Amino acid sequence: MALFKSLAVIGPGLIGSSVLRRACETGLLADQLIAADISPAVLDRVRELKIADLVTNNMAEAAQAECVMLCVPVGAVEATARAVLPSMQPGSILTDVASVRGKLGPTIQALLPAGVDYVPGHPMAGTEHSGPDAGFSTLFENRWCLLVPPEGAHDHAVQKIQKLWELCGARTKILPDDKHDRICAMVSHLPHLLAFTICDTADNLSEEIRAAVLDYAASGFRDFTRIAASDPVMWRDIFIANKDVLLETLDRFVADAQGMAQAIRESDEAAITTRIERGRRIRRTLIENRQA
Amino acid sequence: MALFKSLAVIGPGLIGSSVLRRACETGLLADQLIAADISPAVLDRVRELKIADLVTNNMAEAAQAECVMLCVPVGAVEATARAVLPSMQPGSILTDVASVRGKLGPTIQALLPAGVDYVPGHPMAGTEHSGPDAGFSTLFENRWCLLVPPEGAHDHAVQKIQKLWELCGARTKILPDDKHDRICAMVSHLPHLLAFTICDTADNLSEEIRAAVLDYAASGFRDFTRIAASDPVMWRDIFIANKDVLLETLDRFVADAQGMAQAIRESDEAAITTRIERGRRIRRTLIENRQA
Repeated sequence: MALFKSLAVIGPGLIGSSVLRRACETGLLADQLIAADISPAVLDRVRELKIADLVTNNMAEAAQAECVMLCVPVGAVEATARAVLPSMQPGSILTDVASVRGKLGPTIQALLPAGVDYVPGHPMAGTEHSGPDAGFSTLFENRWCLLVPPEGAHDHAVQKIQKLWELCGARTKILPDDKHDRICAMVSHLPHLLAFTICDTADNLSEEIRAAVLDYAASGFRDFTRIAASDPVMWRDIFIANKDVLLETLDRFVADAQGMAQAIRESDEAAITTRIERGRRIRRTLIENRQA
Repeated sequence: MALFKSLAVIGPGLIGSSVLRRACETGLLADQLIAADISPAVLDRVRELKIADLVTNNMAEAAQAECVMLCVPVGAVEATARAVLPSMQPGSILTDVASVRGKLGPTIQALLPAGVDYVPGHPMAGTEHSGPDAGFSTLFENRWCLLVPPEGAHDHAVQKIQKLWELCGARTKILPDDKHDRICAMVSHLPHLLAFTICDTADNLSEEIRAAVLDYAASGFRDFTRIAASDPVMWRDIFIANKDVLLETLDRFVADAQGMAQAIRESDEAAITTRIERGRRIRRTLIENRQA
């Protein structure tokens, strides 16, 4: 028996279409799969891909599902929740995949109709591609999905969303919103900001340096550019949604970089190697954890 | 016939032992291979590896070779050159592999005995490992070697060093010293500085965040850590040797990062995406150039 009678994915892009593909392949997530979007082009493509039983632009219709998963951009989650919640059925669960939590948890919790639970999760998986064609059924395998249930979410609902992501191949962890946002600022948002910025700095230098960057990227620069290829609109929204924590983390980084600059300026060999050694320690632990 | 009658590698670490391995394997670089070092442990290891015909701690003896290649750290190049040059023979060539040029070119050029040429090169290749065991004969294949002959170097000597690196599998380009150092600051030294620093920033945060970084590194952080595993002493010396250009490049980067921060603080969507788009453009060109 599948986990849910019906699962509606609103916004079947990279993440949403990957969940639908997994659900189709395994049959374990839901008996009926619904895909909803406001874009006719996306709906046409989802029909061609045959990854949902029902494809609709009617949010009220999608909201009838036992589990409604919002896979829309961070900035659109609250508005989409407001659109679907009035049509949701008692006993059903609303979830989303927003990668910044901010005040979403308590805000949406306060809007819930009687008998509806809200259990959002953030699957830490993705590629630099987007749209329904970019998804694949193994996207979440061995990746983390961080669950951030708001106060008041019922255990049975949390367990069902946990199970949903485990059926997608992910490992799950339950975290409070603020800790989630601080962690993501450090492990994901700051690295992306730095990667975009170093490309920008190279681009702003002379034509000669720009050309050289392209010739000699293998010397270190290249490692920064893979993640700089990601979707600009998604990252713009993430940066704005998590601005307070991200800018604080960036300030710490800039202070650390200026500390290193000062050590270099003074040719303070011990201070430079101390800073480098700290970086190596984290790297070694990553290798021991087989994350690198 | 081999390119040189004899080739002496002074400092057979990662780079030097890779040249010796290549020379042994192909027989094309020199008829006689000499390895010299001041460390008895390194010399013992080179003997065991059987990658040189003559293994010595006598620099004057090594200096008899037709080509003398200094593979010592950046900070030791000038002193080693001063030690070997008086023993070098007319018609021979001194080269080094220092990754920062600074004033090395004109300084060493001014010390040359009659008939000796100086044609340094910087092979842009390496791994995070060091020492004679770390080398391998294909290290330079399809990598760049930037040649930085000082004013006064003779064409025939430049051509022989160019040929030496081509025989190692590398592509070569001739550049002036200042351009070399500006390019390397952007494509290699700044990325390493940022990679060391982001690891340092993560390490300085709470224990909770440190643990989370290790759990969730795959979300972007990991891409920064590969290069942060490199040798601390080597990088310390590179940072100090190229401090003027590197710190200027870092200043530009920090200014660009603060520009992005300001755009995020003001939720200026257009400014954020403009900066992100510039990064993507470089990435796309890298992919077209098949460097990524």
